[in-house]
Amino acid sequence: MSDISDYMNKLGEQARKAAAHLARVTTKEKKLALESIARVIDENRSSLLEENEKDLQTGEQNGLDAALLDRLALNESRMDSMLEGILQVANLPDPIGEITDLKYRPTGIQVGKMRVPLGVVGIIYESRPNVTADAAALCLMSGNAAILRGGSEAIHSNKAIAKCIAQGLESAGLPSTSVQVVETTDRAAVGALITMPEYVDVIVPRGGKGLIERVSNEASVPVIKHLDGICHVYIDDDADNKKAIDVAFNAKTHRYGTCNTMETLLVSKLKAAEVLPELAVKYSEEGVELRGCQLSRDILPQAKPATEEDWKTEYLAPILSIRIVDGLDEAIEHINTYSSKHTDSIITENFTKARRFLNEVDSSSVMVNASTRFADGFEYGLGAEIGISTDKFHARGPVGLEGLTSQKYVVLGDGHIRE
Amino acid sequence: MSDISDYMNKLGEQARKAAAHLARVTTKEKKLALESIARVIDENRSSLLEENEKDLQTGEQNGLDAALLDRLALNESRMDSMLEGILQVANLPDPIGEITDLKYRPTGIQVGKMRVPLGVVGIIYESRPNVTADAAALCLMSGNAAILRGGSEAIHSNKAIAKCIAQGLESAGLPSTSVQVVETTDRAAVGALITMPEYVDVIVPRGGKGLIERVSNEASVPVIKHLDGICHVYIDDDADNKKAIDVAFNAKTHRYGTCNTMETLLVSKLKAAEVLPELAVKYSEEGVELRGCQLSRDILPQAKPATEEDWKTEYLAPILSIRIVDGLDEAIEHINTYSSKHTDSIITENFTKARRFLNEVDSSSVMVNASTRFADGFEYGLGAEIGISTDKFHARGPVGLEGLTSQKYVVLGDGHIRE
Repeated sequence: MSDISDYMNKLGEQARKAAAHLARVTTKEKKLALESIARVIDENRSSLLEENEKDLQTGEQNGLDAALLDRLALNESRMDSMLEGILQVANLPDPIGEITDLKYRPTGIQVGKMRVPLGVVGIIYESRPNVTADAAALCLMSGNAAILRGGSEAIHSNKAIAKCIAQGLESAGLPSTSVQVVETTDRAAVGALITMPEYVDVIVPRGGKGLIERVSNEASVPVIKHLDGICHVYIDDDADNKKAIDVAFNAKTHRYGTCNTMETLLVSKLKAAEVLPELAVKYSEEGVELRGCQLSRDILPQAKPATEEDWKTEYLAPILSIRIVDGLDEAIEHINTYSSKHTDSIITENFTKARRFLNEVDSSSVMVNASTRFADGFEYGLGAEIGISTDKFHARGPVGLEGLTSQKYVVLGDGHIRE
Repeated sequence: MSDISDYMNKLGEQARKAAAHLARVTTKEKKLALESIARVIDENRSSLLEENEKDLQTGEQNGLDAALLDRLALNESRMDSMLEGILQVANLPDPIGEITDLKYRPTGIQVGKMRVPLGVVGIIYESRPNVTADAAALCLMSGNAAILRGGSEAIHSNKAIAKCIAQGLESAGLPSTSVQVVETTDRAAVGALITMPEYVDVIVPRGGKGLIERVSNEASVPVIKHLDGICHVYIDDDADNKKAIDVAFNAKTHRYGTCNTMETLLVSKLKAAEVLPELAVKYSEEGVELRGCQLSRDILPQAKPATEEDWKTEYLAPILSIRIVDGLDEAIEHINTYSSKHTDSIITENFTKARRFLNEVDSSSVMVNASTRFADGFEYGLGAEIGISTDKFHARGPVGLEGLTSQKYVVLGDGHIRE
């Protein structure tokens, strides 16, 4: 344990030093470094596959299920997208150094805000080795040093990718400690990483709910976290039926395992008989299991009864709960009670109700006449995302480069003193 | 203890409910509520003074020193400024509901950000009863509910002010639980307040370093905190002598007890002989004790020797430490090592060095040719401040209404689905 904590302290110290350097590098240097990292990874494809094979074999021996093994596996096309991801980040606008709102004050001083890196970002993630390259790119481009802690099942792959990153950094003239991968699989390393505020400025956990809950409960460092995605679509009295059916179908069936997938459909009672039967046919063609409140089961007798538990459940599966509500007020109340504050959408042609929904639903993304599946860093134009925050402090919703930065005040004068 | 925790939970629940209401009220309603609170306080001046007198008497009996008793005391002119403060906040632009960056994406959806309240703000403060009115006004105007925990020495004054606030809220039609003062002096109440993330979204401690350290160490809720103010002025080789002397004098002597007061003066060795003698005369006229490094004592033999401890000390007193440095690099290194990341200023006519200082000094306010005393919410145009954050996460530097808000994404479509 004390060895682990010494080791983590060393990583922390090195990261802090690298961060001081990174805060000063130019956009061009960061871009070159990312390109250089991509090049080194590209040159080492075969050795990355070899290391990944070790992880896959250990995984099989340890009885990992097929889905986990699939997430763990690298192949040529996944390496292609890893490289593409790095180069995409390298071409994003650099947020660092941007000065905004520079204004003269009555005293004659000019006051503005300059965007600066947070410092050191700790990322804790599971199985997918491509997160190593992804997260490293986002941290670097936002001027932050990174300490990456992947899952033990991917340790060989992660170490191999880390080696490429370090080599890429060095050949671009940046400190190789700008991105460090924790090379021990000891769980105590996570405990240390999330409790060293002197070295780490923010933790981003990426993975299952268990991991994120553990990290947020035990961290003494700020955490950008996202627990559940219990997303709603509400079909209002004044919805256009075609839009309602299109969006409710897309929000559930476009992908089942993503956090921005709709889990509960709310329908105004005036609209239910018009849209539910057609929707039920479409869902049934996709094999989606329906669970409904009593009123909705009067229209859709094939639906199973929904329990209180259903309103609180992120299925991540072809299951949908349906509730008929009196109207907008009850819909907003249901959402603010059961939603995980991720993403919720109203389908309506009514201006005033759309405006109320946008104002009163307390979620990180609120939508009108659009599928919840749009809640995503790429779709929002952030270029990439390091996570989706369902908290309100610091960053909310999809977190891109800007979420990994802060703003300091700059004051310009000409010998100004305070009278 | 369990009584206290029940009591605090009740306050928390009520605050959460009030916050849901406050998030929806209009600018006009908030403005009217603040005006109504000011009116009720104005009508109850004599009873406020009576309650304050109780605190003063208890304070004297408990042997509080004169400075503390002075901070505790209300009088007509302090009540005037309390009212003025509330009305000033009532006239600030309302940050809530502002939608920015609403742009079309290639898919056809529009994506923007809407400013929303954080929810429930807990404020923990010491002696000065005017903070009760101040903090309540800032929280309300930013659409947040507030739970206020003042010092036990001001309990009668705080309860009396709280009563006026509740009455003002009610007569303006807002929930009286929008602002709640903790009515027990039991210290366990603080422990409870900072560990109920289900009810409290952020804690702002205002007071001495001991209080802030305790709160930040023990809180499981985000904290907007500011520990020390160890601020520097660096007089560069290329400084204009008059600006250098004016700013260095003002930054130290304008007020001694404030966090934005300069505590250490750094002077480039090429400039030292030109500015230090005149500055020393001016400081000595104000009774400022000088403590210097060896090089500076060669020029100012009257200065006491400065120790390593001096570079780390926030004197809050007429004491100044002086260090002669080789130039900009050493100045930046000294500042990034010893500064509390509050406010640091360079005096120079050199464009490139000014630019480097702004970029490379890692403090919440970085200045060129201006007194550190300008680091203040009013001077920066925030209208008022709830504190000065020396953290990077969420808010950095003076925190006004905007620091008590967050942004959610709004997405507008016309039946858009994700392909």
